[in-house]
Amino acid sequence: MAVTSESTTIWSGSLFEGSGTTTLDSSKLAQFHVDWKARSEGESATTTPEELLAAAHSSCFSMALSLALSRAGHVPESIQTTAAVTFEAGKGVLGSHLLVSARVAGLSEAEFEAFAEDAKQNCPISQALTGIPITIEAELA
Amino acid sequence: MAVTSESTTIWSGSLFEGSGTTTLDSSKLAQFHVDWKARSEGESATTTPEELLAAAHSSCFSMALSLALSRAGHVPESIQTTAAVTFEAGKGVLGSHLLVSARVAGLSEAEFEAFAEDAKQNCPISQALTGIPITIEAELA
Repeated sequence: MAVTSESTTIWSGSLFEGSGTTTLDSSKLAQFHVDWKARSEGESATTTPEELLAAAHSSCFSMALSLALSRAGHVPESIQTTAAVTFEAGKGVLGSHLLVSARVAGLSEAEFEAFAEDAKQNCPISQALTGIPITIEAELA
Repeated sequence: MAVTSESTTIWSGSLFEGSGTTTLDSSKLAQFHVDWKARSEGESATTTPEELLAAAHSSCFSMALSLALSRAGHVPESIQTTAAVTFEAGKGVLGSHLLVSARVAGLSEAEFEAFAEDAKQNCPISQALTGIPITIEAELA
């Protein structure tokens, strides 16, 4: 079955002087303030489209890696994935970097890295993000 | 300047029986439970990678549309953008649909639609998402 998930942003005013509110409509779990200053200069307590994309990418990648490992008989104890998404005004989204550390029994470092590389290529969010470079560093914890 | 935003997912166990926690590291504004059942079947109070991607897309698109309108002398009173991202197990992310309604003075419906189509093509998140179809319906409120 196909599942459609929705989020809504309401923006008021110009890009530089205005601001917006982004709501997770499907889960109703959060509502965030968004503005250009935080996105273009960084600001500790304000989210950005890139942080939200990083959340999507890290969660999807972790699921894909868990699936691949489990299918091969190596159910992971834990997978920790940080996605770091970089934005530059005037250039756009420069890339998503995945930093992965996992506890998995019965695999060599090289075997684990091959699973991680495969999940990087094939996770559904990676497959959507073909317009940006995706890089990865993966190691066993 | 380049701004890097990070989110982390910690996943435990197999895809079907395990689950994870996704944290917005940069803003520290939220932490979400994620699991496969919610993603593949839908579940009202659980977020998904697709809902988070929809949040990224709706916020980025709204900023891009605000910029384009403002540059043309039509600072928007408000822009409301819902992004609906569809996922199907085994097929991946099927697309992102943008539903846009805006209050903007001094533009015809056709002129506004042209701005919206342009923002759909050129917003940085759209430019990252070249692996999936992006569709749009835009109208003046």
